[in-house]
Amino acid sequence: MAAELRVAAPFTPAEVQAMEHALEAALQGPRGANPLVGAVVVSPDGRELATGYHRGAGTAHAEADAVARAREAGVDLAGCTMVVTLEPCNHVGRTGPCTEAIIAAGITDVVYAVDDPHDPAAGGAATLRNAGISVRSGLAAAESLELNRRWFEAVAEKRPFTTLHIAQTLDGRIAAEDGTSQWISSPESLADNHGIRSRIDAILVGTQTVAVDNPRLNARDASGNPAARQPVRAVMGLRDIPEHAAILGDDGLAVHLPTRDPREALTTLYASGTRHVMVEGGSRILSAFLTAGLVDELIVYLAPTLLGSGTPSLDGLGVSTLPDAQHWEWDASDGGPVRTLGRDLRLHLKPQRHVALDPQPSREAARQAQGGY
Amino acid sequence: MAAELRVAAPFTPAEVQAMEHALEAALQGPRGANPLVGAVVVSPDGRELATGYHRGAGTAHAEADAVARAREAGVDLAGCTMVVTLEPCNHVGRTGPCTEAIIAAGITDVVYAVDDPHDPAAGGAATLRNAGISVRSGLAAAESLELNRRWFEAVAEKRPFTTLHIAQTLDGRIAAEDGTSQWISSPESLADNHGIRSRIDAILVGTQTVAVDNPRLNARDASGNPAARQPVRAVMGLRDIPEHAAILGDDGLAVHLPTRDPREALTTLYASGTRHVMVEGGSRILSAFLTAGLVDELIVYLAPTLLGSGTPSLDGLGVSTLPDAQHWEWDASDGGPVRTLGRDLRLHLKPQRHVALDPQPSREAARQAQGGY
Repeated sequence: MAAELRVAAPFTPAEVQAMEHALEAALQGPRGANPLVGAVVVSPDGRELATGYHRGAGTAHAEADAVARAREAGVDLAGCTMVVTLEPCNHVGRTGPCTEAIIAAGITDVVYAVDDPHDPAAGGAATLRNAGISVRSGLAAAESLELNRRWFEAVAEKRPFTTLHIAQTLDGRIAAEDGTSQWISSPESLADNHGIRSRIDAILVGTQTVAVDNPRLNARDASGNPAARQPVRAVMGLRDIPEHAAILGDDGLAVHLPTRDPREALTTLYASGTRHVMVEGGSRILSAFLTAGLVDELIVYLAPTLLGSGTPSLDGLGVSTLPDAQHWEWDASDGGPVRTLGRDLRLHLKPQRHVALDPQPSREAARQAQGGY
Repeated sequence: MAAELRVAAPFTPAEVQAMEHALEAALQGPRGANPLVGAVVVSPDGRELATGYHRGAGTAHAEADAVARAREAGVDLAGCTMVVTLEPCNHVGRTGPCTEAIIAAGITDVVYAVDDPHDPAAGGAATLRNAGISVRSGLAAAESLELNRRWFEAVAEKRPFTTLHIAQTLDGRIAAEDGTSQWISSPESLADNHGIRSRIDAILVGTQTVAVDNPRLNARDASGNPAARQPVRAVMGLRDIPEHAAILGDDGLAVHLPTRDPREALTTLYASGTRHVMVEGGSRILSAFLTAGLVDELIVYLAPTLLGSGTPSLDGLGVSTLPDAQHWEWDASDGGPVRTLGRDLRLHLKPQRHVALDPQPSREAARQAQGGY
């Protein structure tokens, strides 16, 4: 009986609630090369003593963040349970391994949602068990998988997590008739974009954009000075890059990907270490990635400006009728689906899991049923 | 000395603060045929006893709203000061005159920001003075004028207040390549649009929209039943309306305006009693009103959907370069600049007072200064 009960309910109500809070905490982080992860430490009597989340590549993981916050607050975590949305890592990257932080804190129980999708031998569960820690998994596994669904897919496909960036007017234009596009976006949106550039591994544009706009594409601070960490600057397309193009720079970080195939471009970038790429344009490149279904995150800087003509943000998605439109979902992570950046709105979306949620009646059916709008 | 002091500071600190709160309350109402108005009643010792605002044509004015709320709460307003953002009205429209409500409540002082721009003889200030009430005006006049700037302009030009409605995808399309457009917007956005239809005086589309979409354009509730109050359905353009067009209906509310000139269409509508019109499309009509500078309010239903091709929401604004773009401001009235309606965002904007707030450097200047983006 007792054994059956343990199988049927291997998690305490406090752990279930802590996992809910860990999932909420995870959403505070940004999507990118690393998954969204949240962690909550629960005392033996069910109180939540510390919460942590991952702020993106290069920063502490959620478990280490929770332990560090507890230490700062002078809270002893010995004998407590760590509840975390992903299997703790075992590798020493830019930050120390989470297993070490958990063991050092004297934590005796770990509950996590889903396994690390990388080489299972590299996972932290075995290390924790070897250290005498009780490890259970599978709590809220579906929610945690959904939280990072596109990230798991990118890992499985061995391609970088791909963010698409569009800076457009309210009526969906990225340049006026004469090609002017600087600056549709507010200074605050530009600063936000440069902040993302400084956190990702690579930025990608098409040869057309290089020929027309001649961008530098490095990450700069508000004063225009280069950020300490710079992304690879990738140019995709069959045309040559002009010899004196600004994007080439003198730091060896520029790369030409002589292909029109988005998947091939991503495969090449992944092979050279890129785990998060931001596609910045132009409209043909943006459309090619969207058409191929390779966009994991969409960030739109929407200016309260109307042009009425000029270059549309997208240049065809192979969609000729409304029922085939691409549906997206608002993304609550990293500051929420809608933020104000100066005069602009910053919209944050992720691909919809199922294509059409609402029935889209045929035009004639709608007319018959309702006599048109 | 005393007289000079009264001229320099004719308003008490409590009245100044009450006017600020009245301006904030005004923003809760919708823009439209009537201006945004807020009212706060202050006791002789400076306490704010009641607040009211105008919820749009056909509902109580702000002063009457404040008095009614005080009555419901059992608060006696005798001897108090009514602070209101617009001169109280004197006419009996769909609701009683505000002067009557103020006098009946025993209010002894009225402070308002700006005069009613209609026939001065019809204003309520004289009536209030005749009833022995002390009346002062001019407090926060600039703020109150700005609050309803476009409404004052419409009154002066004897044209209806004009709302533009756009239902578009994230990439600025109002129909797919094959013309399908039902429904880009969420059911909640459609319901919001029908709610506006039931409050305004007229709805306007082009003959092209009638020919292509054959809309009914009446106001319907969630079950599809016609609302009690219906707007005039105006069709603008030189083409004939098909004999069996759904828009004609059988209620005599359809009207054909045989012109391509937006100003002429508005003048005709105003002459027949329309004080608030909503322009629904198509893209040529939307663009014509925007190009003419006749749009007082812009409502965009933005679906998280991408089409990549099809009909752009706008069809030219006479703008060929970014510095000439039309700039808009987010409108905080009536629920705020951004609202969630099901899966859609509802964006609410008003024309920017000055065309270009931020310097827009020439492309070459920007390149030289920053080496491109």
